[in-house]
Amino acid sequence: MTLTHHTETRRPLACIILAAGKGTRMKSDLPKVLHKVAGRSMVAHVVAAASLLAPEKIIAVIGPGMESVAAEVAPHATVVQENQRGTGDAVMAARALLEGFDGDVLVAYGDTPLVTAKTLGAMVQARREASDPAVVVLGMRPAVAGAYGRLILGAEGGLDAIVEYLDATEEQRAVTLCNAGLMAFDGARLFGLLDSIGSDNAKGEYYLTDAVAVARAAGHACRVVEAPADEVVGVNSRAELAEVELIMQRRLRAAAMAAGATLADPETVYFSHDTRLGRDVLVGQNVVFGLGVDVADRVEIKPFCHLEEVIVSPGAIIGPFARLRPGAEIGPDAHIGNFVEIKNARVHEGAKVNHLTYIGDATVGSKANIGAGTITCNYDGFFKSHTEIGAGAFIGSNSSLVAPVTIGDGAIIGAGSVVTRDVPAASLAVARGRQSIYEGWASSFRTRRAAEKAAKGKK
Amino acid sequence: MTLTHHTETRRPLACIILAAGKGTRMKSDLPKVLHKVAGRSMVAHVVAAASLLAPEKIIAVIGPGMESVAAEVAPHATVVQENQRGTGDAVMAARALLEGFDGDVLVAYGDTPLVTAKTLGAMVQARREASDPAVVVLGMRPAVAGAYGRLILGAEGGLDAIVEYLDATEEQRAVTLCNAGLMAFDGARLFGLLDSIGSDNAKGEYYLTDAVAVARAAGHACRVVEAPADEVVGVNSRAELAEVELIMQRRLRAAAMAAGATLADPETVYFSHDTRLGRDVLVGQNVVFGLGVDVADRVEIKPFCHLEEVIVSPGAIIGPFARLRPGAEIGPDAHIGNFVEIKNARVHEGAKVNHLTYIGDATVGSKANIGAGTITCNYDGFFKSHTEIGAGAFIGSNSSLVAPVTIGDGAIIGAGSVVTRDVPAASLAVARGRQSIYEGWASSFRTRRAAEKAAKGKK
Amino acid sequence: MTLTHHTETRRPLACIILAAGKGTRMKSDLPKVLHKVAGRSMVAHVVAAASLLAPEKIIAVIGPGMESVAAEVAPHATVVQENQRGTGDAVMAARALLEGFDGDVLVAYGDTPLVTAKTLGAMVQARREASDPAVVVLGMRPAVAGAYGRLILGAEGGLDAIVEYLDATEEQRAVTLCNAGLMAFDGARLFGLLDSIGSDNAKGEYYLTDAVAVARAAGHACRVVEAPADEVVGVNSRAELAEVELIMQRRLRAAAMAAGATLADPETVYFSHDTRLGRDVLVGQNVVFGLGVDVADRVEIKPFCHLEEVIVSPGAIIGPFARLRPGAEIGPDAHIGNFVEIKNARVHEGAKVNHLTYIGDATVGSKANIGAGTITCNYDGFFKSHTEIGAGAFIGSNSSLVAPVTIGDGAIIGAGSVVTRDVPAASLAVARGRQSIYEGWASSFRTRRAAEKAAKGKK
Repeated sequence: MTLTHHTETRRPLACIILAAGKGTRMKSDLPKVLHKVAGRSMVAHVVAAASLLAPEKIIAVIGPGMESVAAEVAPHATVVQENQRGTGDAVMAARALLEGFDGDVLVAYGDTPLVTAKTLGAMVQARREASDPAVVVLGMRPAVAGAYGRLILGAEGGLDAIVEYLDATEEQRAVTLCNAGLMAFDGARLFGLLDSIGSDNAKGEYYLTDAVAVARAAGHACRVVEAPADEVVGVNSRAELAEVELIMQRRLRAAAMAAGATLADPETVYFSHDTRLGRDVLVGQNVVFGLGVDVADRVEIKPFCHLEEVIVSPGAIIGPFARLRPGAEIGPDAHIGNFVEIKNARVHEGAKVNHLTYIGDATVGSKANIGAGTITCNYDGFFKSHTEIGAGAFIGSNSSLVAPVTIGDGAIIGAGSVVTRDVPAASLAVARGRQSIYEGWASSFRTRRAAEKAAKGKK
Repeated sequence: MTLTHHTETRRPLACIILAAGKGTRMKSDLPKVLHKVAGRSMVAHVVAAASLLAPEKIIAVIGPGMESVAAEVAPHATVVQENQRGTGDAVMAARALLEGFDGDVLVAYGDTPLVTAKTLGAMVQARREASDPAVVVLGMRPAVAGAYGRLILGAEGGLDAIVEYLDATEEQRAVTLCNAGLMAFDGARLFGLLDSIGSDNAKGEYYLTDAVAVARAAGHACRVVEAPADEVVGVNSRAELAEVELIMQRRLRAAAMAAGATLADPETVYFSHDTRLGRDVLVGQNVVFGLGVDVADRVEIKPFCHLEEVIVSPGAIIGPFARLRPGAEIGPDAHIGNFVEIKNARVHEGAKVNHLTYIGDATVGSKANIGAGTITCNYDGFFKSHTEIGAGAFIGSNSSLVAPVTIGDGAIIGAGSVVTRDVPAASLAVARGRQSIYEGWASSFRTRRAAEKAAKGKK
Repeated sequence: MTLTHHTETRRPLACIILAAGKGTRMKSDLPKVLHKVAGRSMVAHVVAAASLLAPEKIIAVIGPGMESVAAEVAPHATVVQENQRGTGDAVMAARALLEGFDGDVLVAYGDTPLVTAKTLGAMVQARREASDPAVVVLGMRPAVAGAYGRLILGAEGGLDAIVEYLDATEEQRAVTLCNAGLMAFDGARLFGLLDSIGSDNAKGEYYLTDAVAVARAAGHACRVVEAPADEVVGVNSRAELAEVELIMQRRLRAAAMAAGATLADPETVYFSHDTRLGRDVLVGQNVVFGLGVDVADRVEIKPFCHLEEVIVSPGAIIGPFARLRPGAEIGPDAHIGNFVEIKNARVHEGAKVNHLTYIGDATVGSKANIGAGTITCNYDGFFKSHTEIGAGAFIGSNSSLVAPVTIGDGAIIGAGSVVTRDVPAASLAVARGRQSIYEGWASSFRTRRAAEKAAKGKK
């Protein structure tokens, strides 16, 4: 999806994403913006939202030594903010990359991953529609306004000032419209405004929000675009990360239900940002979707399943207690049961892999039946090899299929076999020891062992 | 439980359950009222609640083509509402089936599954106790009255009018008592009232609630019975279905705790409507009870278990990560451990099935010990066969028991055996290959493979 | 941690913990205070909090026949309250054990396990700092004051009276400061006050709170220390037990996140009171930590894991669907995968145990690779024996290692082997049957079985 706009208001757009924060309160070796939400780093969420506006440039401002963040946002550009002297200073770091840029500039935050393209688009639209080079500020109305800066509107709805909480009068503090931090500028004026910002405050930093005061002092209008408060929750601690994850999950859950999936308990179904569920899909309690899962119509996923990079075809039944790993493709009406792991394997239509089985690097033919405890021995310590199981084959329980090996269509493997050579179609293979019975042995063993145990006990 | 009443007020009762809604917003091929809550379809919940009042008739009004709903409510009657022209029209569809019926008529909704027999009974009681043929309307006070119709009471507490939100004055909108939709009528008057209802409204439909205006105009009294708002939540979307499921689960959890079960985290224990838990049962986090589970006193169910159609005897320990499937009967003080699946099998007193095992179509004798990785091979692709394991038997790990087969009392099976013939009591059976050792083979294999890998890497 | 105080105010301290309540509403055979919260009995939580104040004595007051509670609080003293005639009577039961005790006495409750040492310490401190033998009462401001006794303060902030809800005027009921029940006394005066308490009330019981009225009547000052309401939630039912468990879990979750662990969904991660998580630990959804778990930095625990008495070293990856049982030690960067159980076993650095495996009573050498379906056969019905797997060994899938047995460094075990004798280093061991193939057998078997099935169907 790309959000487009009327050609008449289409001007070049650049997005600056501030991502230099160390996130000390995260207590992590990982840069803050690389912590994940719904399976994707926070900064990648912001890049994705910004990308939907089709900007000419996306520039991430990172801190020194944050090569991993640069890699995450590539091929988009990064600039390093050498000394972290506030948000205004951070935007200044991008100046060289915007030399001669004639368009609008949107400033977003790498630790505010819930912001939507719709909101960013509304900010840009407001910037473009302004009759003058107004600054656009994103506002929100949080449940508790607390210490947020307040947005003071003028008579005509324009933004008069951003007043920091500590500087606010009682009347100003009663204002519920707060500063969310994101801003949009006319690129031609941005750095001029920033040049006028001072650092005469407690921390000696340059605050981007002061651009409003500078603009107002210069007689420019400023405007507010309002976003739902839960779009602009920032992350500074693991607890806030968990809160943002929860909001994101609720969005994804609501979307899945609206599209026709039943979630037995939505609060226990975890999506990745890219999970796709069809219509009349039933998802039981406690199901985790890792990245890259595509589930077709009428699939039932029972409780306690874990899926990642998997395609599930219509009518398949998965779980409970199934793990589908990357490269699993489950065919129509196939059944994957409890304590079963499938990896890099295609299970064809109507096949059944119901109990305590590992299928890796394999093909399971249509209507094949894989007995409980079957293991594909796909790794010899050096190479992975493939197991081919034919259509309609019947693999007896507790069998080991030593790859590379092919089980022909309709073949039967006796229970407990270790299959090391190919099995022709329609044949039976048995590879196990003969049964010997020693009558009375168990009783005498027990007598002996019980005596030993008694002797030990006496010592 | 059947709710009975004083004989003096006992009159015949008929319940009409409106179940014709298509539920377009569910985005489902399944009729809306067949979606399940706590393991039972919504309409079946309503039928069950109504049945506790021992009515002479229960009639479900369904839409064309909804044979599956008719099957669900059978042996109760269904009538098809051909054109869906409102709730009044729906009740009219039941007219033929109530020809000559002399009693009271209760109208409930198939998509409002949380309503209790107590509330329905209170409505019927109010109908019966009325000195005149009053209409009874169910009221509720939702947290947010929003767009619900308001119930306007008269001086003596009778119902004066139901005012739709759009038609309501500010004063009427301030009323918190809202229309929940359920109604009770004197059967002798019901269809007369409906005949007078018009369809002069935006949708051109006949609304059952208009019966109140008609009754009042004819000088009849109307009454309100009030129910907790969470009993009359209707379901029109998957999100509302999830909400109703949650309310139902909370009821079931509270009941289980009040009866003496500890739920480590109640919000993660999922009951079916018919789950039975004894006293001093401990249920860990993340346990799902499917239909038909009966758990005796002092059972411990550890986290991550899934049970369905299962009987668990006193003192048994289940899980974590156990799956008990239909037909499992777990004896007193038996242990079922992790990654174990039991299906259609009786595990006798004190037996242990602790790890990575599949027991299907089997009997496990008392105090038998089933080693890790044991599989009963119960299916040959055509028939299921039985495995009999005697009391005190010891099944070595990773064994395969090929049914039909009997392991005698006290017998021992060597680890890794594939048992295909019966094993007499007190004997040892071993069925596996002999161990061969090839000294130095592993080092030369590794040298060879490493070279191959290196060669591949160079290409 | 021991909370210490200025030496000048240091006086001997005794803590009385009231633990005689039967807890009828729990519907349990277990004494109420032995029900567990975060893996530890409620009374043990209170003993632990009190112990941090380093009191001279801790005395639990128990009911007749509650030997199990005495055992739980041992080596601390217990006294039996023969007839349960109220909280005042309960404290009186401890009189003999405090004969000649010259210090302060703190009274806490065994069914109020959330109280912190900080709050108890503040009460003791307030007692000690009082210029006279004041009684100290713990106050709280619950969300709904309801029927709690109200604390009425005097002009100078001292406590004037505790007024029971039923006796309170409207003005007094408007007071939000409520009586939490915990109290601190000057030991020299305590029993004198109690001697003056009467039992002239509906239940004929002696209420400890009446000590305030007695003290005030004697002209002594009383004081209030305030605690967060969620510290003094008492437990009288399983539902309240669940509520207290939830509050405790939220504390533990917040602490883990503040220390640098990411919890994907904090509400689904369950801690024991003693769980220790390092920095940059990632914990997936639905993870249960039993007692005695210590997880080092940079460990990833994927969803659906259950750990108990386990040490996990830096960089290890656990799960999903892993169960680590007591005595498991997981080395640095080792991997434990799905449907794997580890018990009393050390898995050394970089070893991999990834699928459907039971490792019990064993050592797994560094970089060893354990194939899917491997079982250590550690139990012969009488004794547990050890399995030693050397560094770099490769255990083929579905193998059974019959303990006691040693697999040498770098050895390879063929898939499906049952290993009963030691395997020298660098060698290959194979112990399985040969593969036989019967061409065409499967087709003729199917023809035969299908005919049988058809014949059965006709009957």
